[in-house]
Amino acid sequence: MEVAPAEFDRDTAVTQVDHGQFEADISDRWNTFVGPDGGYVMALAVRALQETLPFPDPLVTSGHFLRPAAVGGVTITTEAVKVGRRHATATARVSQAGRDLLVVVGTFADLTGATGRTEMIARPPDLPDPIDCIDPLASMPDVGASIVHRVAYRLAELPGWMRGEPSGRPAAEFWMRLQDGRPPDPLALTFLVDAAPPTVLEIGETASSTVELTTHVRARPAEGWLACRLATKHVMNGYHEEDMEIWDSAGTLVAQSRQLALLL
Amino acid sequence: MEVAPAEFDRDTAVTQVDHGQFEADISDRWNTFVGPDGGYVMALAVRALQETLPFPDPLVTSGHFLRPAAVGGVTITTEAVKVGRRHATATARVSQAGRDLLVVVGTFADLTGATGRTEMIARPPDLPDPIDCIDPLASMPDVGASIVHRVAYRLAELPGWMRGEPSGRPAAEFWMRLQDGRPPDPLALTFLVDAAPPTVLEIGETASSTVELTTHVRARPAEGWLACRLATKHVMNGYHEEDMEIWDSAGTLVAQSRQLALLL
Repeated sequence: MEVAPAEFDRDTAVTQVDHGQFEADISDRWNTFVGPDGGYVMALAVRALQETLPFPDPLVTSGHFLRPAAVGGVTITTEAVKVGRRHATATARVSQAGRDLLVVVGTFADLTGATGRTEMIARPPDLPDPIDCIDPLASMPDVGASIVHRVAYRLAELPGWMRGEPSGRPAAEFWMRLQDGRPPDPLALTFLVDAAPPTVLEIGETASSTVELTTHVRARPAEGWLACRLATKHVMNGYHEEDMEIWDSAGTLVAQSRQLALLL
Repeated sequence: MEVAPAEFDRDTAVTQVDHGQFEADISDRWNTFVGPDGGYVMALAVRALQETLPFPDPLVTSGHFLRPAAVGGVTITTEAVKVGRRHATATARVSQAGRDLLVVVGTFADLTGATGRTEMIARPPDLPDPIDCIDPLASMPDVGASIVHRVAYRLAELPGWMRGEPSGRPAAEFWMRLQDGRPPDPLALTFLVDAAPPTVLEIGETASSTVELTTHVRARPAEGWLACRLATKHVMNGYHEEDMEIWDSAGTLVAQSRQLALLL
């Protein structure tokens, strides 16, 4: 039986038109308040890199954001730099109307083959079951950011900034998944690390813009809700880092990201 | 009066031989036990990027390491991707004997011009004055890693792994600076984030190899010793992240880095 692809897969589809040349469409379904989500554009680049390299999993991807993306067509140019036995590395450039939006370097691997020592010093977020949590969007009017219809969140309590009382603590723990139930995978993780409202909302800011985003995918996620931990520790001269951890329903760390962003 | 350049400046010198083409030498003075230090090779790329872009400070640099470097000549190929009003982005490839060692994307800025909100949630390491600290190398025999003659460390107490008793806690706080007293600057920070022994030594490991290293330079450092905080929280299937913070003598966070590394 043919099953229609999930929205996320349809909206990150890339078409190879030549060696290392891809075309794709930035959909209007993944917009934050200021335009297409950066993590979503990153996922398009990751799709093109998956087509370019012999390993499926984006072990570590670094993206430098040059300009805001707009809804519409993009071209993605990839170049394999090294294909080794364990890792393969390539670059990708996402361009729109002849101007580069995003430069990515990605090192890919096959995480099913990863073996070696495991020693966890940190633990997953300690959250109530998703069913006992609040859906922060349930009581919200339509906010005009289409991404909130694509990603589901569950929280133990409503964050301060949503109640008009920023807590002063730019940190959050919550559940997340794709709204339509599409199971998480390494590709989706490269989007989801950038799919939550920035924690600087808790210090009274309204938005920030990603300069650079590096994501480590540490394991293929189990099905179900993802437990997330988001934190900013240093806001300096308008720049801040934002660290995200995503743990799967089996309690495994599946992704870790850090971005450098600029307050708007 | 002409002053001879410091070792670090001499050993990271790059010579432009054509547009976006540089030659450099990997010196034998910055070797760890397994060869030239990755952060040192990164600093060579950063020097070439500084020559390529109109802004001096490596605000955020992402390097993917493809092969171990050897002492000797390298070529560095750079390409400016975007030069904007506030940020400029370029790529660099470091090659040796016709094979790529390292691919870097860097976004540069002028940090003297950075203004905007500052809000520090985290604090610098709480260390005794350097003069009241231990020089871990004072009692060590010559260990055959030349980097230990180039970088000075000061610690409140000798780390467990140096006493043959790994603590089981892969975290460390210590002072660091270039041995010859060369003042820290953004270029040196892109090396120093990778210049300390990995904290996985505290869980009984002997070495690990960097897959990717991203460094955020958050401010130009004041002169003097740098207070460092190094930690690994998740070792999974042989891979681990290592997070470094460097704070200057005035208590300002000047660099933050994360690397993904593979236990050897």
